[in-house]
Amino acid sequence: MGGPSEHSPLGIFDSGVGGLTVLQALRHRLPHESFLYLGDTARLPYGTKSAGTVTRYALNASRHLVDKGVKLLVVACNTASAFALDEVAAAVDVPVIGVVEPGVEAALVTSANRLGVIGTEGTVRSGAYQRAIADRAPSIDVRATACPLFVPLAEEGWGDHEVTDTVARHYLEDILAWGAQALILGCTHYPLLTPSLSRVVGPDVRLVDSASAVAEAVISRHRDLLKADDGGKVTIQLTDASERFRRITKAILGEEFEELEVVDL
Amino acid sequence: MGGPSEHSPLGIFDSGVGGLTVLQALRHRLPHESFLYLGDTARLPYGTKSAGTVTRYALNASRHLVDKGVKLLVVACNTASAFALDEVAAAVDVPVIGVVEPGVEAALVTSANRLGVIGTEGTVRSGAYQRAIADRAPSIDVRATACPLFVPLAEEGWGDHEVTDTVARHYLEDILAWGAQALILGCTHYPLLTPSLSRVVGPDVRLVDSASAVAEAVISRHRDLLKADDGGKVTIQLTDASERFRRITKAILGEEFEELEVVDL
Repeated sequence: MGGPSEHSPLGIFDSGVGGLTVLQALRHRLPHESFLYLGDTARLPYGTKSAGTVTRYALNASRHLVDKGVKLLVVACNTASAFALDEVAAAVDVPVIGVVEPGVEAALVTSANRLGVIGTEGTVRSGAYQRAIADRAPSIDVRATACPLFVPLAEEGWGDHEVTDTVARHYLEDILAWGAQALILGCTHYPLLTPSLSRVVGPDVRLVDSASAVAEAVISRHRDLLKADDGGKVTIQLTDASERFRRITKAILGEEFEELEVVDL
Repeated sequence: MGGPSEHSPLGIFDSGVGGLTVLQALRHRLPHESFLYLGDTARLPYGTKSAGTVTRYALNASRHLVDKGVKLLVVACNTASAFALDEVAAAVDVPVIGVVEPGVEAALVTSANRLGVIGTEGTVRSGAYQRAIADRAPSIDVRATACPLFVPLAEEGWGDHEVTDTVARHYLEDILAWGAQALILGCTHYPLLTPSLSRVVGPDVRLVDSASAVAEAVISRHRDLLKADDGGKVTIQLTDASERFRRITKAILGEEFEELEVVDL
């Protein structure tokens, strides 16, 4: 039992299946790498739960992936990144990348002076995005708004739906009236709502999806760990595999997934 | 350490705080009894998860309450009642009452010939309501529809809201066109949506809330266990106590609750 090598898979952890949008971005940029994805579907959502509970779950899931031999760990859940990234990094001996910093860096490229952040209640309450933006660009004005119904709407498959339009108008009314020029989608589920969100924010507000930003961060920071000619095997582990999660997995990955395993943490 | 006595509390278990509607109905009818309520908020929702996972969680929570000395156990979660009532009853040595049978009995009193059932994906898929109605009244026509967004809408506090009206029209369109005369609210969260649901179903469709039916079932089946002059103490235990759950608890119980404990199962 040696440690991980460059031939080991990249580990990706999310509370559920929303992080598959990050897996897709990574596969697109790194088609020859292997991936081990863990979705904690038996305990999702994390976004409505307390910092202590989210941290406990995130540590549990991260140790599982490291025990399976991943060479790098992507915490693809925004709530877990916001509450528990430091604890996870301290607990495991492989590099750890969250989704908050890459998302912020991608948002700063838009040159927006008024930046909106949308996410779960936990992510918004943590202040992680607000701090990360203030650290890098203190002159930028930031407003953050929790959108608790967006995850269930994404899971319902209503990313292009009149109900989602109505809900989005409710949640985003203040932040749009304030004049947000870009909006960070601070939850891996939210890219699934892009059709409705684009209609509601209009053409002048940029939607910033951190999934591809995370892939770029992995490549720029950890090129030494990557291997251009590996098998490209993708394994998906879920802590619960109801029909609903299988359906959403298929909707995001666009294919039936043979390697879907159910694990008990 | 003897077993429970008539002075022991009644135990109520739910995946979250929706079951507090059942606690309220029981307190109203049995104001001198003591209650121990357990909401498994760290692992909710149950309604989207598989039968195996829900059963494991329900057994875990039920054993916790019985270890705490409850004299009777109410499984106030419809999904857990639908998937795991027999397993729970076999695993503990106190009487167990679920919410499905009392709800069906209350619905049969309405004399509806076309009966609709709404609930979570898990509850509808389990077929528990459909079977319970067929056992008692085989001539009644039944249709069941899953309404996955109703729990998040109730938790958002949008029980009287245009978005909920729109979502309800989507989910209930077919069952109303079919001519349902009564609708069983097969989830303890749904009574919180009564204002919107009443508007959408109109005055001719009866909404059947099983909460008070469960209270009647406890009284009629287990009068020997009840004690008319006990302290009336109510203790609420949650496996996670984020601001969100405290807010919903207050919305349902209408008061700040001092005795809110966080427990780790």
